[in-house]
Amino acid sequence: MPEASPNRPAPVRPRTPKPRTRRGQDTRDSLIKAAEAVIGEVGFAAASIADITRRAGIAQGTFYIYFQSKDEVFRELVLEMGKLTRGFLADAVADAPDRLTAERRGLRAFLSFVAERPALYNIVMEARFVAPDAYRAYYTTFARGYAQNLAAAAHEGEIRDGDAEVRAWALMGMAVTLGERFAIWESEVDPDALVTEVFDMLERGLRP
Amino acid sequence: MPEASPNRPAPVRPRTPKPRTRRGQDTRDSLIKAAEAVIGEVGFAAASIADITRRAGIAQGTFYIYFQSKDEVFRELVLEMGKLTRGFLADAVADAPDRLTAERRGLRAFLSFVAERPALYNIVMEARFVAPDAYRAYYTTFARGYAQNLAAAAHEGEIRDGDAEVRAWALMGMAVTLGERFAIWESEVDPDALVTEVFDMLERGLRP
Repeated sequence: MPEASPNRPAPVRPRTPKPRTRRGQDTRDSLIKAAEAVIGEVGFAAASIADITRRAGIAQGTFYIYFQSKDEVFRELVLEMGKLTRGFLADAVADAPDRLTAERRGLRAFLSFVAERPALYNIVMEARFVAPDAYRAYYTTFARGYAQNLAAAAHEGEIRDGDAEVRAWALMGMAVTLGERFAIWESEVDPDALVTEVFDMLERGLRP
Repeated sequence: MPEASPNRPAPVRPRTPKPRTRRGQDTRDSLIKAAEAVIGEVGFAAASIADITRRAGIAQGTFYIYFQSKDEVFRELVLEMGKLTRGFLADAVADAPDRLTAERRGLRAFLSFVAERPALYNIVMEARFVAPDAYRAYYTTFARGYAQNLAAAAHEGEIRDGDAEVRAWALMGMAVTLGERFAIWESEVDPDALVTEVFDMLERGLRP
């Protein structure tokens, strides 16, 4: 996949304008949902536009009113999933009394999210190869919000001072890998116990 | 890619026996090195066996003495890369006086490794889709050794007690994502400063 290599991202074409009518928006949403189901199931390469329109119950030609290509619907799907994940986590931590509690609840919620919707997780991972710009936007947007929260918490004295951006990427990486290992591959560890272990290290550090 | 979907791993066929002669081993090694160069450059899907043998300077038919398929050479490549990475990191931390120093040096060495050989990093990431069994073996083998080191260090009182396996996965995830963000995408942050920041959090924790 030369043009989708992470070293040479595909040129970003202008996105097809979003529909203006309610009905158009509904059709577009159905296509994204169908793409999620089909691509999550068989992977990007094996998924065809015909599979996606069949799943959505829409004529194949209609697809091209909303998207130029399978690439474009995939990219939109990754963007949608970013919003969905951020919204889900924001809700999970909304009434946390302080940042450390928010961190703990956020990790717990992320593990549940991954366990319940492994297809979403797989799609983001596949985006690294299929739509590297969308993959990067997914994590960069996430990190930006995360770093703002960490910086605000350090300012308020809820956590120790430190580089919020570096911390945000480190903590995201931790969550992503713990999600793959303990929520997708095997879940022999109780997620609450897992979060308690991780937070013992994060809150108090490894130093004896 | 239905048979390579992370949800439905490809059936693992018996590996082609390794050659017994020195010359055979050299040819096999050349094919793996050529596969690394070609797949690292264009991705697994676009790489052909003809590209790999051309790069290795070997007749195409000879490939099949050593490997059954592009899948098999890829899987062997991921296994080789696991050994290489583990060896590189073991060397980097060999004379560290204690575990926290070893952790710090290990992360620093990993970031250098990723910056110098991004193709290796990309191949492991692509393995998630192309050879999920090899991808999983890569991380599981890594985590096993890492957890043993952490458990031994806790036993010796060099770090606080805690679940070594959970910690190993959390720390690996952190390193992988920091590598992608700061060693592959952009390196505007000095790697020593990055490691110092991350270790401030890991050693002392986030609690104020």
